[in-house]
Amino acid sequence: MVDVDSFIDEKIDEIATEVGDENAVIALSGGVDSSTAAALAYEAIGDQLTPVYVDTGLMRKGETEQIRETFDYMDSLRIVDAKDRFLDALGGVTDPEEKRHAIGEGFIREFEREAKETDAKQLVQGTIYPDRIESEGNIKSHHNVGGLPDVVDFEGIVEPVRDLYKDEVREVARELELEEIISERMPFPGPGLAVRIIGEITPEKVEVARESCHVVEEELEEYEPWQAFAAVIGKATGVKGDNRVHGWVVAVRSVESRDGMTARAQEIDWQTLQRIQSRITGENENVARVVYDVTHKPPATIEYE
Amino acid sequence: MVDVDSFIDEKIDEIATEVGDENAVIALSGGVDSSTAAALAYEAIGDQLTPVYVDTGLMRKGETEQIRETFDYMDSLRIVDAKDRFLDALGGVTDPEEKRHAIGEGFIREFEREAKETDAKQLVQGTIYPDRIESEGNIKSHHNVGGLPDVVDFEGIVEPVRDLYKDEVREVARELELEEIISERMPFPGPGLAVRIIGEITPEKVEVARESCHVVEEELEEYEPWQAFAAVIGKATGVKGDNRVHGWVVAVRSVESRDGMTARAQEIDWQTLQRIQSRITGENENVARVVYDVTHKPPATIEYE
Repeated sequence: MVDVDSFIDEKIDEIATEVGDENAVIALSGGVDSSTAAALAYEAIGDQLTPVYVDTGLMRKGETEQIRETFDYMDSLRIVDAKDRFLDALGGVTDPEEKRHAIGEGFIREFEREAKETDAKQLVQGTIYPDRIESEGNIKSHHNVGGLPDVVDFEGIVEPVRDLYKDEVREVARELELEEIISERMPFPGPGLAVRIIGEITPEKVEVARESCHVVEEELEEYEPWQAFAAVIGKATGVKGDNRVHGWVVAVRSVESRDGMTARAQEIDWQTLQRIQSRITGENENVARVVYDVTHKPPATIEYE
Repeated sequence: MVDVDSFIDEKIDEIATEVGDENAVIALSGGVDSSTAAALAYEAIGDQLTPVYVDTGLMRKGETEQIRETFDYMDSLRIVDAKDRFLDALGGVTDPEEKRHAIGEGFIREFEREAKETDAKQLVQGTIYPDRIESEGNIKSHHNVGGLPDVVDFEGIVEPVRDLYKDEVREVARELELEEIISERMPFPGPGLAVRIIGEITPEKVEVARESCHVVEEELEEYEPWQAFAAVIGKATGVKGDNRVHGWVVAVRSVESRDGMTARAQEIDWQTLQRIQSRITGENENVARVVYDVTHKPPATIEYE
């Protein structure tokens, strides 16, 4: 990307030409990639674009409210409350691939319905350069709701930020005057908190993951991590009051990265780790243990599943 | 304990009186408590005491060889190779209580056979003061092979170090000239590596736990932890070579404590954590992630199950 302004002008022209007078949809996740692609496309084609935000119940704390506020200016915005349908579909599923599959299927079902209702012929996607590279190695399958074009019958796919790295997407987002909470936001995986929960997804685990992620985002903001979050990774023994309990183990992860393809675990001050530990075990009755992930990518991935 | 020398003299007299001319057995785990109790009892009654070491296959790296060397002077020492029997009994068992139960049962079976063969009427145990307190709250059930007296029919139980804290036991061990590797050794749980493996016990997980514990003990020796070890706590995604893998998550724990009843997670230098991480993921093909436990006791326990 040579120059942000010319990039934006060029992309707006391109999108307008590609879409023509047809309708288009985009799946909005709240992340910077899809938000930026949506904002570009909205500049280009206005309400011919329907941005669809599916609330799977696996979103970050306050995410749905944030989306509603930020994209309030798009009259065509649709917010779908699919929380119960996702929880039902995920009941009893423990295998990571099956979980991701169930989420992908559920997502496609919700999205397809909206696309059909708006008679959309064009799909806009927030795919970025590293997504395309990683899909080839099958490292991040389904993280960005791949597979959509195979199922829903679109005439064309528009990917305005497909050649950009994440930091370039942020530049575009800033130039488009998206709110800071969007432009500077950490990446968040497509399947949401589901990849931050090992084993079966239950309402209790989702709540622990969501609250713990919130604590980590707050406490580690000053470290300016590429991504910082918490995951519910299993159970282990603990002592609460005078009794032995079997409580959740929450893993905290904070990494530095330029593009997400490789990443370094961040060195975090011991006092900060202790504050995080104490808040997470204190605010969540059934959490007995907090661990800090010290592994780089590779050999670990950034997310847990 | 007022004075180590008088304590030792007094206990030797007491044991000799209590045991009389009967035979006695003690379960030797390699830890400082049972080793010290065994050494005291052997001073008192010589080969009337049969120290039984059951190799469950869940021992630390090199432990069996160490026992053989250290207690070489006791002619009555019995080393039982029960590795295969324990692995068989643990196959398919995932519930923590059932696992501990299977180990307890297996241990009693092995120990009972030896006790009967030697016609032992007295049981010597390395119970220490915090064990007795914790058993009352059910915090550390079966960690020290409780339940033995209920099953095997002994006429008496001798617990020479029952009123001591761990650091006092170490003083006695030094005075008895037990090798430093024993007297200064970190506590090791009765069920061995089993409480450092979440879920089913398999030969692969035992090997990962054993090798990882060894790395942690080596790298953290200079921090003089009360206890430092590694646990295999689950699976998560990773990248090895160019491919996505589903590899083990190894948790590293290092705590400071006076008596094990409460403990503080130790602040470990980032470079050291990185060296541990890199050795564990490098030396164990199927480990994708290393996390460091930052939780104190309470709310976590020291061990994981």
